[in-house]
Amino acid sequence: MVATDDRPWDQLRELIGQRDRAAILAFLEALPAADVARAISRLPIEDQGQLLTSLEPEDAADLVDCFVDAQAASMIEQLAPEAAAAILDELPSADQADLLSELEDEQAEAILQAMDPVEAVGARALSAYDHDVAGGLMLAEYLTFSRAATVRDVLGDLGESADKYRDYDVQYAYVVGTRNRLVGVLRLRDLLLARRGTPIEELMIADPVTVLDSTPLEELDDFFDAHHFIAVPVVDGQGTIVGVVRRNAVEEALGERGASDYRKSQGIVGGEELRTMPLLLRSRRRLSWLSINIVLNICAASIIAMHQDTLTAVIALAVFLPIISDMSGCSGNQAVAVSMREMTLGLVDSRELLRVLGKEATLGVINGLTLGALVAGVAWAWKGNPYLGLVVGIAMMANTIIAVSIGGTIPLILKRFNLDPALASGPILTTVTDMSGFMIVLGLASAMIDKLAV
Amino acid sequence: MVATDDRPWDQLRELIGQRDRAAILAFLEALPAADVARAISRLPIEDQGQLLTSLEPEDAADLVDCFVDAQAASMIEQLAPEAAAAILDELPSADQADLLSELEDEQAEAILQAMDPVEAVGARALSAYDHDVAGGLMLAEYLTFSRAATVRDVLGDLGESADKYRDYDVQYAYVVGTRNRLVGVLRLRDLLLARRGTPIEELMIADPVTVLDSTPLEELDDFFDAHHFIAVPVVDGQGTIVGVVRRNAVEEALGERGASDYRKSQGIVGGEELRTMPLLLRSRRRLSWLSINIVLNICAASIIAMHQDTLTAVIALAVFLPIISDMSGCSGNQAVAVSMREMTLGLVDSRELLRVLGKEATLGVINGLTLGALVAGVAWAWKGNPYLGLVVGIAMMANTIIAVSIGGTIPLILKRFNLDPALASGPILTTVTDMSGFMIVLGLASAMIDKLAV
Repeated sequence: MVATDDRPWDQLRELIGQRDRAAILAFLEALPAADVARAISRLPIEDQGQLLTSLEPEDAADLVDCFVDAQAASMIEQLAPEAAAAILDELPSADQADLLSELEDEQAEAILQAMDPVEAVGARALSAYDHDVAGGLMLAEYLTFSRAATVRDVLGDLGESADKYRDYDVQYAYVVGTRNRLVGVLRLRDLLLARRGTPIEELMIADPVTVLDSTPLEELDDFFDAHHFIAVPVVDGQGTIVGVVRRNAVEEALGERGASDYRKSQGIVGGEELRTMPLLLRSRRRLSWLSINIVLNICAASIIAMHQDTLTAVIALAVFLPIISDMSGCSGNQAVAVSMREMTLGLVDSRELLRVLGKEATLGVINGLTLGALVAGVAWAWKGNPYLGLVVGIAMMANTIIAVSIGGTIPLILKRFNLDPALASGPILTTVTDMSGFMIVLGLASAMIDKLAV
Repeated sequence: MVATDDRPWDQLRELIGQRDRAAILAFLEALPAADVARAISRLPIEDQGQLLTSLEPEDAADLVDCFVDAQAASMIEQLAPEAAAAILDELPSADQADLLSELEDEQAEAILQAMDPVEAVGARALSAYDHDVAGGLMLAEYLTFSRAATVRDVLGDLGESADKYRDYDVQYAYVVGTRNRLVGVLRLRDLLLARRGTPIEELMIADPVTVLDSTPLEELDDFFDAHHFIAVPVVDGQGTIVGVVRRNAVEEALGERGASDYRKSQGIVGGEELRTMPLLLRSRRRLSWLSINIVLNICAASIIAMHQDTLTAVIALAVFLPIISDMSGCSGNQAVAVSMREMTLGLVDSRELLRVLGKEATLGVINGLTLGALVAGVAWAWKGNPYLGLVVGIAMMANTIIAVSIGGTIPLILKRFNLDPALASGPILTTVTDMSGFMIVLGLASAMIDKLAV
């Protein structure tokens, strides 16, 4: 029993083999919510596909919704286009688009062909947008009513189509004129107390605030900071309503970006990695980052190669080279993290290099003096040579100032050139600070070689 | 004019000096939303305080709401308790509690004393909770109605108190029995089509799903994965309703945790750092992390000190020590990032050490072979000595396997001991891999010293 509890996927696998729909559903419902994703992701990928086809498309869609896009896509990939299409038809439009964008173009096209034509049109329209603009974050499920409608018309439609609207997040309805141009927003709760014959045009908020479909994520965040709305209608260049962006979609996307910045800074690039993915794909993606890093590392270490004579004469320096390299990296990365945060919060403009430089350099002096004194003391105490302490202490201090100055400004510079600061800041920082650190230690040492080599 | 546009805070400062309420409001409203927070954070901290007291409490509260808690608290700190209390009275209860928790206990108490007594009771109740459990994430603004009420009673109350409820996020009302015990949930849209005399007990969903006030963030995330609700009522141990947790509060808290993990992994500890904070505070917080790191670094480098003779004989090795140290750190951090992600998604249980070890070690063999071959080739080509290539190549390969194995498992181990993996994984990883890397290179080299020292 203990073994079964620890590995619920063994039992699930058996049920899938028997294609026992009712038993599978009952099993999944009995499992704690936290264990469902883990249990399914431990199944062989073919079994995950078979699990989806064993269920009704609607239940399968609910299940797919529990997974991150990359995982959901790898499950959907196992299915015939028709089976995949039946499941996608049951997903909200935004999820359809996210999922399709994770698939190979050919496979996505085959699924779109097999989907319900109305759903496919919506999914295609959303797929055309980048994922971090209003068009890519919006929902295509929203209520529109003609400006000629009355409260009675609206209430009638709400009653008739209650089933269809149940999954909508209904708080506003949008009032449109000719060619679906947005002319007003109706708060549904305002209908509660209105007389049934009132034209909705009298109740609506006219000339509502909207965002363009091309509005980027950062501006949407600013928008929701400035407005206490739960959602905002999205219009295209002609003023036609094309969707609705909800506040929580923006918050979720920003949170996801923060977590993704973390992964990128740690060298997980080219998309999310989960340990259920194929070994060679995981290895290749990690190597793509490591191989750039090793080349940069070899460049930096070539500074040491150029000073071999100095190093042979004062071998104790070899002990301090990795310390200075690593500590400069740490100090610089702290400054990178603060700049990334201030950029996210909109507290720093990417042109304010001098301000950041000033703030970091002063801090660098304090921290550099502290760390320099510490390492100088260790060196002096160890070898009994104050000049050794002086060399490594000065090098540590100077390189800390360099590291925090570069660390603070490099994300701003990268952003101005439209490069991804989370990705590129680390390698650039450590390469430059390694080189400068090695140069300062070994340069100072060769200048003072007669005091050091005793 | 260009200078003014670039530094809007100069003009704002002038208006604050004149205490011209209308001009300040007009100025802030004319500023692009993205620039408001930046402009204000550039003011001297006393001016920020004066800005708040120049505005009506309600406008000041709107302004405070634009800032992260640490920043908002430093503005509020400038004010007399009465002025601060007037602003806090205008904030939603969850924001009151977050803000108060950022202040010194004494100051928070003084403000609570000066607040509206009803608001203060609510703020105190919320402040008692940790920020990452349901009690700390919930809103205290929600609608309750007695089980004896009818649809007419509810609609009447909604109409009468429309102003008060305007800031509530009204989609559900909660039906309570004696002692505020929760007995049902009422979807407000169900009222739309109901006859006015119907008792709400007939419309409500009885025995609604609830969460306990002590439910942790991860479980709330699982809850909202499993249930398509927008919000869930929070009850205490007696079944009394104490608040409502919204899905987007959970998403926001998770996103904030991801971003905070990123900062911690980069050595920003002891709370958020913004460059507007006092220099010595920033320096001290960063040093608290760096000083631990430098001690660990010195420990690791002591391995080199023990092998000085080998290093003097084969000085070329000194070039490869920082490369192996840095690359092992990179490889290990990739594994850390994947484990952090899988833990967040609930795809790995902290007891599954062996599974992660197996997955990482196999990947480590492939990446270790690749990187080892690369660095061996460089060493051989540089010095023309195949044995040098062999030593550094084997060391790189072995240490890559060690690094990914430790990197993958250490977050799981730290989590089991209730330590913060984002904070501690990096330093532990690099210390261990530095030591093992130095030991392997220098140990192998001293074993093959007659082949290397030529």
